[in-house]
Amino acid sequence: MVQIPERRIPEQSARRDAERVRPVPTSADVARLAGVSRATVSYVLNNTTAVRISAPTRRRVQEAADALGYVPHAAARSLRAGHSRMVLMPAPSVPVGALYSHFFNELQWALRRLDYTVVQFGSLGMSGDDAARAWAELRPVAVLAPGDGTLTPRGVDVLKRSGARAVLTIGPERVDGAHALLMDQRAVGHCAGVHLLDRGRTGIGVVVPGEPGFETFSAPRLAGIRAAAEGTAARVVPLELRYEERSADRLAARWPELGLDAVFAYNDEYAMLLLRALQDAGVDVPGAVAVMGAGDLLLGRLLRPRLSSVRLDLPSGQVLAELVDRAVRDPAGTPEVHPLLGAEAVPRDST
Amino acid sequence: MVQIPERRIPEQSARRDAERVRPVPTSADVARLAGVSRATVSYVLNNTTAVRISAPTRRRVQEAADALGYVPHAAARSLRAGHSRMVLMPAPSVPVGALYSHFFNELQWALRRLDYTVVQFGSLGMSGDDAARAWAELRPVAVLAPGDGTLTPRGVDVLKRSGARAVLTIGPERVDGAHALLMDQRAVGHCAGVHLLDRGRTGIGVVVPGEPGFETFSAPRLAGIRAAAEGTAARVVPLELRYEERSADRLAARWPELGLDAVFAYNDEYAMLLLRALQDAGVDVPGAVAVMGAGDLLLGRLLRPRLSSVRLDLPSGQVLAELVDRAVRDPAGTPEVHPLLGAEAVPRDST
Repeated sequence: MVQIPERRIPEQSARRDAERVRPVPTSADVARLAGVSRATVSYVLNNTTAVRISAPTRRRVQEAADALGYVPHAAARSLRAGHSRMVLMPAPSVPVGALYSHFFNELQWALRRLDYTVVQFGSLGMSGDDAARAWAELRPVAVLAPGDGTLTPRGVDVLKRSGARAVLTIGPERVDGAHALLMDQRAVGHCAGVHLLDRGRTGIGVVVPGEPGFETFSAPRLAGIRAAAEGTAARVVPLELRYEERSADRLAARWPELGLDAVFAYNDEYAMLLLRALQDAGVDVPGAVAVMGAGDLLLGRLLRPRLSSVRLDLPSGQVLAELVDRAVRDPAGTPEVHPLLGAEAVPRDST
Repeated sequence: MVQIPERRIPEQSARRDAERVRPVPTSADVARLAGVSRATVSYVLNNTTAVRISAPTRRRVQEAADALGYVPHAAARSLRAGHSRMVLMPAPSVPVGALYSHFFNELQWALRRLDYTVVQFGSLGMSGDDAARAWAELRPVAVLAPGDGTLTPRGVDVLKRSGARAVLTIGPERVDGAHALLMDQRAVGHCAGVHLLDRGRTGIGVVVPGEPGFETFSAPRLAGIRAAAEGTAARVVPLELRYEERSADRLAARWPELGLDAVFAYNDEYAMLLLRALQDAGVDVPGAVAVMGAGDLLLGRLLRPRLSSVRLDLPSGQVLAELVDRAVRDPAGTPEVHPLLGAEAVPRDST
C-alpha cells in the first residue's frame, strides 16, 4: 500500500481564501443583483415554460446567478416541479464484474436520454428499511432496487409516501407494491445442468464463491442445477472456492477423492481459475472432468480448452429505461412483473 | 436480447390502491398525530442532542412518523445541520474493471464507517461545469471528482458556494481550489518501459484501446513509456486494439511487418487477448515478442506463458476516507496534493 506522506504540499495560489468564508448565495441574492423578483429567478433557472420571460431578463438572471455561483437546490426544485428526475439505485455491495458494469452503463445512458439522472446510493451495512428511509430522504422520482429480499413492502411504502412515483425491483424476488423485473438465476444453473447431463456426466460439482455477498446469485444457480438433476441418477455437490490460486489448488488436489466428472462454476472467472488448477494437478479437461462457467466472457475463450459457458441474456438498457419511464408516468398503475433474464448454454471445448 | 412481453401480469393484491393517492406526509402531520410541536418532531427525528426530550415523547413521535410513513427531507435536514454527510462521486463513464470496482467498494465501506454516505452521480454527457452544477444541487458535504480535466476551477467554486466543505480530485490533473489525490498514470507506462528495455527489447508496441473513454488512462501510460525510451535506441509505436477477438487477430496478422519485439498492452485484459492472438498466429511469446499488461489480475497468471504485468499500488480505502474526512473538517484549509499511485513491474514468463 502507498503511504500518504504527512507533509502537505501547499498550492501556489491562495486567491480563494477570502471567498471560502462567503455565505452560500440564495435566490434572493440573485434577484437583488438582477433587479427582478424571486419568482422571476425561479422561473428562469427552472426553465419554466408556463411563464413568458424576455430574453434580456433571462440573460440578466443567468448572469447574476453565474456571478454569485448560485445553484438551485435539487430538493426545492423537485418540490416545485412535483417530483425530481432522479432515479436512485443502491450501489452494488460487492465488486461487480464486467457484465454488470457494462449493463449498468448502458442503463445509465438510456435513462439520461430520457432526461433522468441516475444516482447510485451506498447503502452498505444498512438494514432494508433503514436503507429505504435513507433513499427516501433524497426524494427520488423512481427507485430501482435489488429484488433480493432487502427491500420490504414497508420500504416500498416509505418510498412512495415520500414522493417516489415508481419503485421497481430487479432480481429474483418480488416485493408487494413494487414492479418486479425478475431475474431468475435458477435458469442459469438449470441450463448448465441440462448441458452437463446431455454430455453424460453423472457427478456434478457446483462451485460456490467462498467470499460473502454472492448468495443472492449463487444459491438460486445451485437450486437450478439441482432441479435439472432431479429424477436422474446424477449427484450434485456444492464446492466452496475462494477467488485465489491457493484455494483452487487445494480443491484440485482433492479432486480424485470427490469422484466428480463435471463442474459448473459460479461464473467464468471461477471456472477459469479451477480449470487451470485442475490441469496443473494433472486432471484432464474435458476427458476426466467437464468444466463450465457462466457469463460468456471473452477471456474464457482464451484458455485451452476453450471454456464452455452460459450466456446471460439481459434486456438492453434502452428497454429497461423505457420500463422505468412508463412506471413513472403511471404512478397509480398496477405493479407489473417482467421476466428479464434469459440463459443459454454456449458449448465449447471444456465440456 | 430478451424481449419484454407486452402483456402485464397483474399483482394479486391491490390493497395499496387507496393509499397511492394519499399526499406526502409532512412533519406537521407527525406533530399533529403525536400531539407535540413541529420543533419537537424535528428534534426527535434529527437526533438533536442539544435539546432533552423524554423517552415517551420520543417514542410517540417515532411511532407517529412510522404510522404516517414520514421521512425527513435530506436537504431540509442538511440545512438545519449546516451540511449533509453525503460524499458525492461521479459514476464512472466507462465500464469499470475488477481493480476499480474493488477499490471503490473499499472506499465506500471506509466512508460509511466514518458516518458518510457515498452517492455516485451519473453525469454522462454533461460538460464539466454543468456536471458541477448538477452535483451542487444535491448539496454534498464533499465531492470526489476525477482529476481528468472535467472539473474546472469554476466548478470547484460552484460546489464550494453551494456548501461543499471539501472538493477533492482523484486522477492525473490538479484543479485550482481542490485537494488533489494525484494518480499519475505515466508511472505505469514508465515502469513497463524500463522493464522491457532491461530485457533488451528495442521495438515496443503500446496497445491503446480502440473504444472511446479510456484516453485519460491510456494517453499518460503511452507518454510514460515514451519517456522511458527517450535517449535509447528503442522505438515506441502506438497500436489500436478493440477488445474483441477479431481485432486482436487482425493485429497479430500484421505483426511480422511491424518489426516489434515487445508490446505493452493497456491492461491485462487487452494483453491476454493479444497474447493469445499472437500465439494463434504462430508468433513465439516471449521468444519473438515480450508481452506485458497492467493491473496484475489473477486471470493473467492462468495463461501460459504467465503474463508479466505492472502492479498498481493504490492506497487503502481507509486512508482515502480519512483524507476526505480531514478535508471536510477543515474547509478553509489550503488545498493539499497527495501522490497516490505506485507502480511496480511484476515480471513473469511472457517477457
